[in-house]
Amino acid sequence: MDPTPRRLFTEAASADVVIESLGSAVTPRTRRILGSLVTHLHAFVKDVQLTDQEWETGIEFLTAAGQKCDAVRQECILLSDVLGVSMLVETINHRAVREATEQTVLGPFHLVVSPERELGADINLTGEGTPCLVTGSVRDMDGRPVPGAAVDVWQSDAKGFYDVQKPGEIPERNLRGLFRTDGQGDFWFRTIVPCHYPIPIDGPVGRLLAAADRHPFRPAHIHFIVEAPGYETVTTHVFDKEDPYLDTDVVFGVKESLIRTFAVTDDEERAVRLGLPNPFREVRFDCVLRPSTRETRAETQP
Amino acid sequence: MDPTPRRLFTEAASADVVIESLGSAVTPRTRRILGSLVTHLHAFVKDVQLTDQEWETGIEFLTAAGQKCDAVRQECILLSDVLGVSMLVETINHRAVREATEQTVLGPFHLVVSPERELGADINLTGEGTPCLVTGSVRDMDGRPVPGAAVDVWQSDAKGFYDVQKPGEIPERNLRGLFRTDGQGDFWFRTIVPCHYPIPIDGPVGRLLAAADRHPFRPAHIHFIVEAPGYETVTTHVFDKEDPYLDTDVVFGVKESLIRTFAVTDDEERAVRLGLPNPFREVRFDCVLRPSTRETRAETQP
Repeated sequence: MDPTPRRLFTEAASADVVIESLGSAVTPRTRRILGSLVTHLHAFVKDVQLTDQEWETGIEFLTAAGQKCDAVRQECILLSDVLGVSMLVETINHRAVREATEQTVLGPFHLVVSPERELGADINLTGEGTPCLVTGSVRDMDGRPVPGAAVDVWQSDAKGFYDVQKPGEIPERNLRGLFRTDGQGDFWFRTIVPCHYPIPIDGPVGRLLAAADRHPFRPAHIHFIVEAPGYETVTTHVFDKEDPYLDTDVVFGVKESLIRTFAVTDDEERAVRLGLPNPFREVRFDCVLRPSTRETRAETQP
Repeated sequence: MDPTPRRLFTEAASADVVIESLGSAVTPRTRRILGSLVTHLHAFVKDVQLTDQEWETGIEFLTAAGQKCDAVRQECILLSDVLGVSMLVETINHRAVREATEQTVLGPFHLVVSPERELGADINLTGEGTPCLVTGSVRDMDGRPVPGAAVDVWQSDAKGFYDVQKPGEIPERNLRGLFRTDGQGDFWFRTIVPCHYPIPIDGPVGRLLAAADRHPFRPAHIHFIVEAPGYETVTTHVFDKEDPYLDTDVVFGVKESLIRTFAVTDDEERAVRLGLPNPFREVRFDCVLRPSTRETRAETQP
């Protein structure tokens, strides 16, 4: 803590005065983060000439967001999501590398371990929804198959709910599965066509969306985490090209490269072999992993 | 809610994509505030290249701040205070107007109604501390006295505590008083010399100050709210020129025009007349009010 006399607060120098208050023992990274945060916060307040009343509204909003959080609800993450901050952080930290599969947000529903399943298994435990075959492969950036890769999948049901949202009503682990690619790096399983769904709107973030005249929907998608030794783990979604909310995802998670057609397949012989009604829907997701030797930022401590 | 197809999220256009999600029914003011907020938030994330881990730390911090709040503790305001945001909002909304008395932050301790007291009364109910006479006047911008103005004062005790912080230990309404200026617009009362004190540091804001290598102290001050019909109400402090934290106030509340000397007065006759020991300390605060007819922003709803 620096005993040198400092200049007093003025409107013109407001951010600088706050930054000058940082002590000499602060880490370089904390100095950089707090400095930039204060600079942008003050610029925002000045830009909009925030009124006393609006400041109060903001304080009440942040307080309510923190107080809405519990073991199964994270309103502050939801806030970050709807402001595009989560997706920006995701994008910055996992930039597209040539043909490697792009990432998107993890989302709040990967709360339980997916059950290990045989290739071809049906992860739909309720019999409801439109049957769908998912096929795909896991390859490295030179096109070589990655056998034994873990393919963790989870999705909402036909009504837009994840199992963890309706315990007792939806069977545990419904529409979740952990598969391993075969010797050719391929995987396949049976599920249903996913459905778009609203994020929770019974809290301050719901009020924010209403004030912003924004809908609360995420377009239909299947979540994937693909993992194999020696490669970067990929956390991503596959989106349904026909979804009405595809270009207005409330959390901005859609990337062009992740959109797929859930096509109608009419093939009696395949349907029988796979244990599906005919016709059925089918989507393909070929995942390309990059090696895990990429550079990582040395400094991550705040 | 706009059904027009929109472009997908990209790192380069991230803030614009979020702003484009605002619906057509949003108010112009909400559009402006959210637009600027998102622009600055995204610029911050890009500027520091915020890592996944740092984002998580931020989410946990905001969550903890909201959850620390209760009826007598407002951690989100404290956060705004230590980042200089409260003082900036205060300054923007109450800019100095010629010789009118400058404002500063209200602070969190004006929780109770100050008891009405006669001019000259002693607001120190414990007998502890260094006796001090406060004298002053309330005038308009042409120098005319404002008789009957309400002068609401409150301050910490000699150990740096407000009565509401130690109920049962400090007498209720200790060091609080509501005075009325006399026919000449003057006021005077007895109190003690205030003491600097730390803001509460047993929450996330305390951890932030520690990480920023900043002390938690506010320099010694007496709070004033001066109010009279036809004038803008002034919320301000008078600071002790000798305080060691004067130029490092943790909430950045000090303005040059609000610093006063708590001088030593050696005057047996006055001391006896005022009911003070001799010598005693003395500080003068002449308050200048501006007319209440100033322009106000029409639009304050978010």
